[in-house]
Amino acid sequence: MAIVNDHTVKAFDEDLNRLRGLISEMGGRAEQALLQAMTALNMGDLDLAAQVVQGDKKIDALETEVEQLTVQTIALRAPMADDLREMIAALKIVSVVERIGDYAKNIAKRVALMDQTRSIEAIPVLMSMSSLVVELVHDALDSFAARDAELAVRVTIRDKTVDDFYNSIFRALVTFMMENPKHITESAHLLFVAKNLERIGDHATNIAEMVHYVVTGERMEERERGEQPEDGAAEQEQG
Amino acid sequence: MAIVNDHTVKAFDEDLNRLRGLISEMGGRAEQALLQAMTALNMGDLDLAAQVVQGDKKIDALETEVEQLTVQTIALRAPMADDLREMIAALKIVSVVERIGDYAKNIAKRVALMDQTRSIEAIPVLMSMSSLVVELVHDALDSFAARDAELAVRVTIRDKTVDDFYNSIFRALVTFMMENPKHITESAHLLFVAKNLERIGDHATNIAEMVHYVVTGERMEERERGEQPEDGAAEQEQG
Repeated sequence: MAIVNDHTVKAFDEDLNRLRGLISEMGGRAEQALLQAMTALNMGDLDLAAQVVQGDKKIDALETEVEQLTVQTIALRAPMADDLREMIAALKIVSVVERIGDYAKNIAKRVALMDQTRSIEAIPVLMSMSSLVVELVHDALDSFAARDAELAVRVTIRDKTVDDFYNSIFRALVTFMMENPKHITESAHLLFVAKNLERIGDHATNIAEMVHYVVTGERMEERERGEQPEDGAAEQEQG
Repeated sequence: MAIVNDHTVKAFDEDLNRLRGLISEMGGRAEQALLQAMTALNMGDLDLAAQVVQGDKKIDALETEVEQLTVQTIALRAPMADDLREMIAALKIVSVVERIGDYAKNIAKRVALMDQTRSIEAIPVLMSMSSLVVELVHDALDSFAARDAELAVRVTIRDKTVDDFYNSIFRALVTFMMENPKHITESAHLLFVAKNLERIGDHATNIAEMVHYVVTGERMEERERGEQPEDGAAEQEQG
């Protein structure tokens, strides 16, 4: 195993701090991207939507940087089990944040494919849903930075509200489509936007579950956990 | 750094082989789950759908097993950069396979929410799309097992066909909804099934890109790559 001395420990802590800094920068950019994508959707602002698409490249680049730093650090410092577990969690968390960025980009790309969304009353509900989702992503990443298992649990509990938002938007959009066959394409895009937001909420829950495991060494209790990714919504999408 | 001797190397190779075995078992189960979910959808077979949902627990358990084995191996054997990179790739690949299992489970859960899907002509196209997607997942995992960068590139190229399938199904379903407002709920579920299949194709591409990087040390060329996750489809979903 590694020869551990003060120098090694200090160097490892520096790497770990740099890693945490990169992750919080990445998280901040992903939150920003999601807020801008939803604003672009609400305002029909194509320039803002294009900025979000462009900005996703930086999020992807940060993920690559974190991966390389993690592999280097593990190879050079051979961290002990706990530190290693935190680095592995960091790797998984950035891959989730990268995906959140992709969902924001996907929402942004749909802006150009929709017109007359103003007439669709689901939009204000989508905006409220996205505000909650951004909060959950922010708190999930805070729980990682602060190693706060309780905050992580609260994220998973609040994700249930995201699923409720999703189910009511699904029903509203299906009804709207039945009454306005001419707006079915726009409504179908909004169904996917709602699903993307619901998935981002699930990803915030995934991060929170990883944080809980790293901090407490235990998996989160069933009762504490939010809906499983992709399932809860489907269970209730009765239209 | 680690004291490397024959024993260490042999033990590491055994761990690596066990890891590869677990990943291929996981991959096989995910492919099977997807095939069964689509059969259940096509036949309206609720029992088969329930089996898929139940079976996903085993896929999740395998992911946890791979994670624990990887962390143990890295901590005990302190592998050198190349081996370490392969283990990190293995971690990322199983998290993708776990997600493919979730998508299959999500499709299975929608079976109970749909009736009269027989009348929707998009179903046979969805079945063809799913056959291609299962092939891509299979080949992506083979390319990892065989360290075959060329096979990985072919997966990303064929993923473009998955996106074409998706876009034509999106248009077909939107048209069907306009003509059959009574079937809008079923059609909306099928839109999500098509999107799940398209996402699984993207995940096969993600695996192929990781394999290409591990094997060649280089990122796949733009021109070689399939559509980015979540974007290609949105670009063309004109309904």
